[in-house]
Amino acid sequence: MTTFGESHGAGIGVVIDGCPAGVMITEQEIQEQLVWRSPGKNRYTSPRKEKDRVEILSGFFEGKTTGAPIAMFIRNIDVDSSSYESTKHLYRPGHANYTYSEKYEIFDDRGGGRASARETVARVAAGAVAKKLLAHFQIECTAFVYEIGGIPVQTLDLSNLQTLREKTYASPIFCPCEKACEKIVQEIETMKKEGDSLGGILGCVARVPTGLGEPVYCKLPALLAFAMLSIPATKGFEIGSGFQAARMQGSTHNDPFTMDQEGHVSLGTNFSGGTLGGISTGAPLFFKVAFKPTSSIRKPQQTVSLEGEKAVFQLPETARHDPCVAIRAVPIVEAMTALVLADALLMNRVARL
Amino acid sequence: MTTFGESHGAGIGVVIDGCPAGVMITEQEIQEQLVWRSPGKNRYTSPRKEKDRVEILSGFFEGKTTGAPIAMFIRNIDVDSSSYESTKHLYRPGHANYTYSEKYEIFDDRGGGRASARETVARVAAGAVAKKLLAHFQIECTAFVYEIGGIPVQTLDLSNLQTLREKTYASPIFCPCEKACEKIVQEIETMKKEGDSLGGILGCVARVPTGLGEPVYCKLPALLAFAMLSIPATKGFEIGSGFQAARMQGSTHNDPFTMDQEGHVSLGTNFSGGTLGGISTGAPLFFKVAFKPTSSIRKPQQTVSLEGEKAVFQLPETARHDPCVAIRAVPIVEAMTALVLADALLMNRVARL
Amino acid sequence: MTTFGESHGAGIGVVIDGCPAGVMITEQEIQEQLVWRSPGKNRYTSPRKEKDRVEILSGFFEGKTTGAPIAMFIRNIDVDSSSYESTKHLYRPGHANYTYSEKYEIFDDRGGGRASARETVARVAAGAVAKKLLAHFQIECTAFVYEIGGIPVQTLDLSNLQTLREKTYASPIFCPCEKACEKIVQEIETMKKEGDSLGGILGCVARVPTGLGEPVYCKLPALLAFAMLSIPATKGFEIGSGFQAARMQGSTHNDPFTMDQEGHVSLGTNFSGGTLGGISTGAPLFFKVAFKPTSSIRKPQQTVSLEGEKAVFQLPETARHDPCVAIRAVPIVEAMTALVLADALLMNRVARL
Amino acid sequence: MTTFGESHGAGIGVVIDGCPAGVMITEQEIQEQLVWRSPGKNRYTSPRKEKDRVEILSGFFEGKTTGAPIAMFIRNIDVDSSSYESTKHLYRPGHANYTYSEKYEIFDDRGGGRASARETVARVAAGAVAKKLLAHFQIECTAFVYEIGGIPVQTLDLSNLQTLREKTYASPIFCPCEKACEKIVQEIETMKKEGDSLGGILGCVARVPTGLGEPVYCKLPALLAFAMLSIPATKGFEIGSGFQAARMQGSTHNDPFTMDQEGHVSLGTNFSGGTLGGISTGAPLFFKVAFKPTSSIRKPQQTVSLEGEKAVFQLPETARHDPCVAIRAVPIVEAMTALVLADALLMNRVARL
Repeated sequence: MTTFGESHGAGIGVVIDGCPAGVMITEQEIQEQLVWRSPGKNRYTSPRKEKDRVEILSGFFEGKTTGAPIAMFIRNIDVDSSSYESTKHLYRPGHANYTYSEKYEIFDDRGGGRASARETVARVAAGAVAKKLLAHFQIECTAFVYEIGGIPVQTLDLSNLQTLREKTYASPIFCPCEKACEKIVQEIETMKKEGDSLGGILGCVARVPTGLGEPVYCKLPALLAFAMLSIPATKGFEIGSGFQAARMQGSTHNDPFTMDQEGHVSLGTNFSGGTLGGISTGAPLFFKVAFKPTSSIRKPQQTVSLEGEKAVFQLPETARHDPCVAIRAVPIVEAMTALVLADALLMNRVARL
Repeated sequence: MTTFGESHGAGIGVVIDGCPAGVMITEQEIQEQLVWRSPGKNRYTSPRKEKDRVEILSGFFEGKTTGAPIAMFIRNIDVDSSSYESTKHLYRPGHANYTYSEKYEIFDDRGGGRASARETVARVAAGAVAKKLLAHFQIECTAFVYEIGGIPVQTLDLSNLQTLREKTYASPIFCPCEKACEKIVQEIETMKKEGDSLGGILGCVARVPTGLGEPVYCKLPALLAFAMLSIPATKGFEIGSGFQAARMQGSTHNDPFTMDQEGHVSLGTNFSGGTLGGISTGAPLFFKVAFKPTSSIRKPQQTVSLEGEKAVFQLPETARHDPCVAIRAVPIVEAMTALVLADALLMNRVARL
Repeated sequence: MTTFGESHGAGIGVVIDGCPAGVMITEQEIQEQLVWRSPGKNRYTSPRKEKDRVEILSGFFEGKTTGAPIAMFIRNIDVDSSSYESTKHLYRPGHANYTYSEKYEIFDDRGGGRASARETVARVAAGAVAKKLLAHFQIECTAFVYEIGGIPVQTLDLSNLQTLREKTYASPIFCPCEKACEKIVQEIETMKKEGDSLGGILGCVARVPTGLGEPVYCKLPALLAFAMLSIPATKGFEIGSGFQAARMQGSTHNDPFTMDQEGHVSLGTNFSGGTLGGISTGAPLFFKVAFKPTSSIRKPQQTVSLEGEKAVFQLPETARHDPCVAIRAVPIVEAMTALVLADALLMNRVARL
Repeated sequence: MTTFGESHGAGIGVVIDGCPAGVMITEQEIQEQLVWRSPGKNRYTSPRKEKDRVEILSGFFEGKTTGAPIAMFIRNIDVDSSSYESTKHLYRPGHANYTYSEKYEIFDDRGGGRASARETVARVAAGAVAKKLLAHFQIECTAFVYEIGGIPVQTLDLSNLQTLREKTYASPIFCPCEKACEKIVQEIETMKKEGDSLGGILGCVARVPTGLGEPVYCKLPALLAFAMLSIPATKGFEIGSGFQAARMQGSTHNDPFTMDQEGHVSLGTNFSGGTLGGISTGAPLFFKVAFKPTSSIRKPQQTVSLEGEKAVFQLPETARHDPCVAIRAVPIVEAMTALVLADALLMNRVARL
């Protein structure tokens, strides 16, 4: 997968190379995935009207992938960088315009540019294709809000992906636990009023066969960690027991092997989170991703100008404000997971004679 | 970097391709790094006598790298798989022999094989070269024990790498805080007696210039997360505020830009952990890695045999037992960090005309 | 560089990743390169009216590359697959529809699809960017017709790239030798009447500094050979003396080292064609590429149908016919050369400390 | 495949990553391949006594590949750089010591170093593994001398690989045509006396299924051209009709499709050399590689010293002299072909669902 495009340029695109021929998928199915990412979907994410329309540029014939590179493009239609005008000479706290300037010696003052979360629309489009590929092999994954603003889900049943997915997508904030959802929504409303923002934690669970992941560097958790930390605003990744493992003892943490009712080898617990030695065990893959609070807030913040003068950064009234970027990241985490699993699945085809 | 070798084969090796010509390093300097990883270094890690001797096979001329691939090999000299004999028909809880069998349909019964922590000796050797390359650019990093068995460091000063490193390497468990060290050592002794094991968290801090890391997929945190989760027994990664970011508000989390005393742009706080938009800010890079408790314990554990019969897995008396694998991982985390930074440094050379 | 698109789909595109920030180039300059490839340029290539308009989708800000991926798209506007209707159940001699069917089990009957020479428009667009990058380092290259239908150039002066390029681009068939040009044009006219086609050989010369190319696998000639053989219809590649080297003796073939008038090391002859051990010597890089005669001819040809019945393939009257595909490949060879040199130049930045 | 090592260092090695588990091969079988490359094999190649003994360092268990990286090492045992002593301050005509110095600013004066043909012993070892993998899929290839010193084979039957291989390996110069062999041997004897050298052309033929090769950049001919031009001393590559295609007409060159006796689609001729659109047709793959005359000759040659003084380079009497490097390249071309085909075979596994 190669993505391209900036928030204030012509649009965002993606090229998928190496997708097998024969995967059936329609433009409509990709479009549906984009809608979930769209901020107009609910009132708790940025109100920018991204009427994202995907255009398939290549790689399909009669509704099937042909094995050729699949290119998709989503044109920017609501591009207005005027709200950045008044602050364009300032380094934005929590943003990448300082580091981009240092790295490239080019200062694109039209907004987030390549660093904008808008880039992720390409990932969701690519993820839609990956999901269809995975479906041929009974592999699926679902992401959800696990915790926002310090409020975690209270009940969480990972055993049934279908139910988990339904509950998640029925929630205005992608949270499968109704009680937590209610409290979180209140907290978000408070933040909106205060012009501040919240961080959060997403969970993701996947059903995968045994054998995915390479044993040393391209361990499945390593591939997932790489993919997750490539999403804007992420600060951490943990699989299975995660950081909690550091406070456990081996006699508890080691998942015992047992035989399940169908006579297959299975695991009594799943502290490992679905992999051993980097390779999937066949137990549910389960990991979490930490997101920082949205960097763009309405509260005034201390900063400096390009010329090195002390300054106050204040988001213009007209600028968009998304009080919790983690919510909107649910379809992105899900898409990146699908892409990693699709890669691992294809790589696994050459593991044996 | 390409590594090869198994715990019970001829040895472990590594090839580094793409190292610039002109880096000065001696076999002795590499050897010194290996000693830190060696379990004979202190009594709290596995007593296997790994008299690791690195042999440089290529890539040097008169003490300098030539630009050609650098190959190094560490021969296995203490290979004895007899202690695995009595349990070789069993899946080992917490180990990879089940997943390897499923993936490759080959069951290597001589111990950890490719999944063994022994593979990491190659990473430490490669990391030694990376460190010397980085030193030419005033880049350095140091890893340390941050928490073991639920006991965190009580005081931690990240401002002076030199002091931090000295304290760390003076400690029998690579822990820069003496008070925590004392308690942790007690806890480890208890585990040794009980035949059980502890998890832990390592920290790592690095001094880097601005501009390292690529903006979208190869973000510096993504590269680090990938590298860390490729280390055996790791369960999580977080940079800067990490999972704590999920409980913070944007107005606190956004590091304000200021001017330092030399007139350079600088950050008032460092919740971001040294990167913004995936690119280094010039502030100290700081991240943590979670390790699960050692899988190999003396306590009996429930498992099944290759034939699917219920069984009890019990480590033979003669087998090695390392009560906390995190300790020994300190030089490995440090080596992998150096390798990631070296890659990022070289990639950054093509960022601008 | 990643390209995408088919001859009868939405269009052809390319994404360039890794181009340094700061290269100045306008859409107009890219467009000019496309015109040279355009078949309407002269009457000796296929009359398909490809009014190729490049659209830059990303990677630029105020006329300069930003370091972000550069995407360009050329929409297909003259797509008419009706002329393929009558023959769409047949395997086309010399074409890829048989091998694509075997590989992907998908039979795209709308024309050349991904295998169409139309894909090369993306290479020319990418090459335009590469040329601008190279110009910053005084590197340039020019391709030309060396031989068509057995008629080689009679005089060829490689010492002055500027003159060579002017003569080449003044010729209706990109041939810098007027005498050869005249004969070749006659021969092509004959082929047009007969409905047959001719093969040819292109030459390419480049001015490069010493040190480009990697020493073992990514030798400069290996990279060039790979790039050239990836162009449709190519059958061979040779650098410097090429196949003629097989009939020479070492005492003649070894280029003697001398000192030039500026006191630099130089070569007395250039049988090596500009590289030794895969690395550029600083002497002009010179290589040739062989093209087969155009596969699409008007003469009837023996073939079989998808069902395995004997059949005669006859190009419909309305179908395009290009009597010599080599001519049109001149800008493509030039573009691919520029891309290889740009890669080699950037790779060389990490050769030394 | 990653190779490492220099002619005058510890030895030469190779790591193969991505070889499927389950390929059966013994150290002895690899050793046999090395013998064919060994110059002591016949009197027409360099008399350096390379008693190459391969040591398998990793990747095997009970005679089968495990899926882990396969490392092999061949120690240098006849290292004597004293014969280079007298000329070590001179640039050697036809050699890489000038370009290496320019690129790396390091002048390794101990002989060929990384540029030495000795590096190719690693390729032959790796090729031995690739051949065993290919054998599982009834794929095989054989290389041979096609022309030396302007003397081509007179009869050549490509239809039976087994016979071709037997004739080739029965010849002291790997030439399957006895008549040509006799003349070539005479010519080589003359060169030995004169202290000069000859160039040559190798042929290679392979039996492959349909569908190998990727359609655009990683076309099978492009992969082969890359592999061949990465071999030291190569100057050209052509597939099927090659440069001769430039003098043919489409009506002749287009291979007609027919049905063979088993009812499969087949080709009436094979000017295409086994691929169409970069993908194998199932017809025999056939290509040629041009080698320049050996650079190391006894005749005195004009050169300059490192200090820029005019000088005469004369190979010391004690130095090895191989009058025709092409002969010894036969097992190398064969090995590289096997490696390319193995890659293409594995890549093709992900072409379809």
